[in-house]
Amino acid sequence: MSRLPEVLARLDSAEAEIRGRYFDFLRIPSVSAQPDHAADCRRAAAWLVEELRAIGCTAEIRETRGQPAVVAYHPGPGNGASPVLYYGHYDVQPAEPFELWTSPPFEPTLKEGPNGPITVARGAVDDKGQVMTWLAAMRAWHEVAGGPPVPVRVLVEGEEEIGSPSLDAFLDQHAGELKQARAVVVSDTNMWDPQTPAISARLRGMAYAQIDLYAASRDLHSGLYGGMALNPINLLSKIVAELTDANGRIQLPGFYDAVPEVGGNLDAAWDSLGFDEGRFLGDIGLSVPAGEKGLKPLVRQWARPTCDVNGIWGGYTGPGSKTVIAAEAHAKVSFRLVGDQDPEAVLDSLEAFVKARVPADARVEVQRFASAPPVVVPEDSDEVAAARRALAAEYGREAVLIGSGGSIPVVESFRRILGLDSVLMGFGLNDDQVHSPNEKFDWACLMHGARSHARLLAELGA
Amino acid sequence: MSRLPEVLARLDSAEAEIRGRYFDFLRIPSVSAQPDHAADCRRAAAWLVEELRAIGCTAEIRETRGQPAVVAYHPGPGNGASPVLYYGHYDVQPAEPFELWTSPPFEPTLKEGPNGPITVARGAVDDKGQVMTWLAAMRAWHEVAGGPPVPVRVLVEGEEEIGSPSLDAFLDQHAGELKQARAVVVSDTNMWDPQTPAISARLRGMAYAQIDLYAASRDLHSGLYGGMALNPINLLSKIVAELTDANGRIQLPGFYDAVPEVGGNLDAAWDSLGFDEGRFLGDIGLSVPAGEKGLKPLVRQWARPTCDVNGIWGGYTGPGSKTVIAAEAHAKVSFRLVGDQDPEAVLDSLEAFVKARVPADARVEVQRFASAPPVVVPEDSDEVAAARRALAAEYGREAVLIGSGGSIPVVESFRRILGLDSVLMGFGLNDDQVHSPNEKFDWACLMHGARSHARLLAELGA
Repeated sequence: MSRLPEVLARLDSAEAEIRGRYFDFLRIPSVSAQPDHAADCRRAAAWLVEELRAIGCTAEIRETRGQPAVVAYHPGPGNGASPVLYYGHYDVQPAEPFELWTSPPFEPTLKEGPNGPITVARGAVDDKGQVMTWLAAMRAWHEVAGGPPVPVRVLVEGEEEIGSPSLDAFLDQHAGELKQARAVVVSDTNMWDPQTPAISARLRGMAYAQIDLYAASRDLHSGLYGGMALNPINLLSKIVAELTDANGRIQLPGFYDAVPEVGGNLDAAWDSLGFDEGRFLGDIGLSVPAGEKGLKPLVRQWARPTCDVNGIWGGYTGPGSKTVIAAEAHAKVSFRLVGDQDPEAVLDSLEAFVKARVPADARVEVQRFASAPPVVVPEDSDEVAAARRALAAEYGREAVLIGSGGSIPVVESFRRILGLDSVLMGFGLNDDQVHSPNEKFDWACLMHGARSHARLLAELGA
Repeated sequence: MSRLPEVLARLDSAEAEIRGRYFDFLRIPSVSAQPDHAADCRRAAAWLVEELRAIGCTAEIRETRGQPAVVAYHPGPGNGASPVLYYGHYDVQPAEPFELWTSPPFEPTLKEGPNGPITVARGAVDDKGQVMTWLAAMRAWHEVAGGPPVPVRVLVEGEEEIGSPSLDAFLDQHAGELKQARAVVVSDTNMWDPQTPAISARLRGMAYAQIDLYAASRDLHSGLYGGMALNPINLLSKIVAELTDANGRIQLPGFYDAVPEVGGNLDAAWDSLGFDEGRFLGDIGLSVPAGEKGLKPLVRQWARPTCDVNGIWGGYTGPGSKTVIAAEAHAKVSFRLVGDQDPEAVLDSLEAFVKARVPADARVEVQRFASAPPVVVPEDSDEVAAARRALAAEYGREAVLIGSGGSIPVVESFRRILGLDSVLMGFGLNDDQVHSPNEKFDWACLMHGARSHARLLAELGA
């Protein structure tokens, strides 16, 4: 008979230990975007290796072209069942702007939130907190039953927040051992609300670039040169402004050709979720819907592409006035993609769009950063069915099938390179302030997440 | 008979002393825009007081609402002639970006330029170097003849580079003593070319503002919120882009109502100067004319308004990619003005233009910095005639009457508050890199400028 009841009891009695390990993990500032944190990324990987070995796994650091990855194995009950691959990432977003944090981003702090205790720290939920949900479940199975009821593989990478640039090559290199798995379990998405679990069935893709525009050979006096010399800030502003029209439609040629309309059952299913846009915006101090005009909010968030300027800079940004025409201007621009949109094709189109608007005497470079195709996961696989049973048992209500506006590039890579589908079972909430100052994770979400993963392991081992 | 020949000879023999005092002045980092340089501004004012006392003036620091001013008197020959007011400014632009300087901005360095020796330093020409031209002339007259051949007043302010915000109140307060002067002599403009002296007959005005746009209550994840929440960088880019059209015309309602057309004699006179736009742009690494389409370059530079974004910033500007929608975005925007354009009316119009484009849930502030009305100085005054004689005698060719794209707010203030016209006799060159890294002043320009001022003093005293 299943040891699940004991495992769940063990989890409930282990809260203090779980918090201690979770906080140790959060104290490591493993920011993958910033070169001076490379050693911290390696420390986070080493911490995970120790954690996985402590629960009976064979675990090691595996080098990539960038930040190292962690790979681990557990034979489970040794019944020869095909393993399940658990994926997560130990890297986190930069914590800037630091001054907006109410507690230091890498000193995890337990506070009281609207729905009970929360942990505030960079990575609290994305993805260290979500990784802790399945690590805690595996540890409980290890302590109660000597290991999980199903063989597991673990892959934790350190470059998800910069678009997993090294991961495809890594999956190619280790495909032989990794593709033995029957499916991938990923916890890097949100619940529908604090009471309602969710499985994400679709993820938007992403294409991210930086535009560097260079005009005069030096900064110029705006009096002597105003009206005579190209102002790269004026021009860059025009270029990024022209990327979208007054209705929020992106103006790259053919951009919407591969974007499917949302209709029929899907449209009805999303309507039935009763999404409250006013409350969603109110939580961030806004009230006016943005994005494409005339579309429903969940369609805009889950099924439509976007173009956001993520950063812009140029000229004099100090106090007071300086009458200068800058020599250069820069912008970081990213697109969220859906349907069959191809990130590289979008970046090709962006580069052509930009270069067509730059005069002959200016120089422009378009640097390409992260890119990821959109993904739709099958809703009817055995593993999704198992996850839905586990969530229903834990929360006492059915999980809803939702989309996610965010991107998890590796999900598409798992399918393309390893031929594996993923189960996106996540425990974040919309108000977790992911990528923002004061990122948090509800303690209840972490514990119910751990219990849900304990149940999923039982389902997968049955 | 005039002692002018001895004065000119004295100047020629005093080059080393002049350079020593000039370099001492340049070593003081009197940056008025940056609060941490307030003490340096006061040091520069004190240095001037000592310099003026050494040449027989009664001189003192006078407090203003901002950086202190320097006021000095010299009775001249005591013949009761009405005095001439010399104006200059000791403050300089910020030196940023420091890394682009080939020598430290506040360690003046003598180098070899295309037309002989040059001094490289912040303020080398604007305006410390130009102030040195008339200080050196007055010192030579003092050493040769015990003083200048005409009574002089001196006013050197410390806020010209931030738009002289305190000067009008200062002129009001001291109008009684200052308005006794017959005219103002200002050296803060350029020659036509290294061989051709110039008197500037028109200055563009300026209106400078900072736009601060605030959207969500925190930075947002561009995946979860892209297509849902206002992106203030996208919006600010659209707003500044809409300030000008594809032909470079500024789109503020009624903006051109007070802008006169250039025609007839003036148009012909400027044509006759044979301005080489290709060379002007080539000197700064450009080749494509900017500004309003279909207008002659000198008309665009001297007689047309402009709109330049002097700085812009928002979101993530570090290395790599961060998928964030920023909570705020900022831009510094300035207009050069001509004809009867009113700076405050232009800023009112800008504020309305911006606010009309911001949705109800965003907050925008338009901070007003410097503003100055355009100025046209009379070309037929006795003092302008005297200056033209002095320049013709020094350079062996007639001075040309030119415009200046830049602004000297105080010239309009002198007329409005003191009823005094100005003579704009300057010795800068277009390639002096004013307001830019590696600002320079040709040594020949400084010495011929000093000799020209010695001659002007003789003309005014005749």
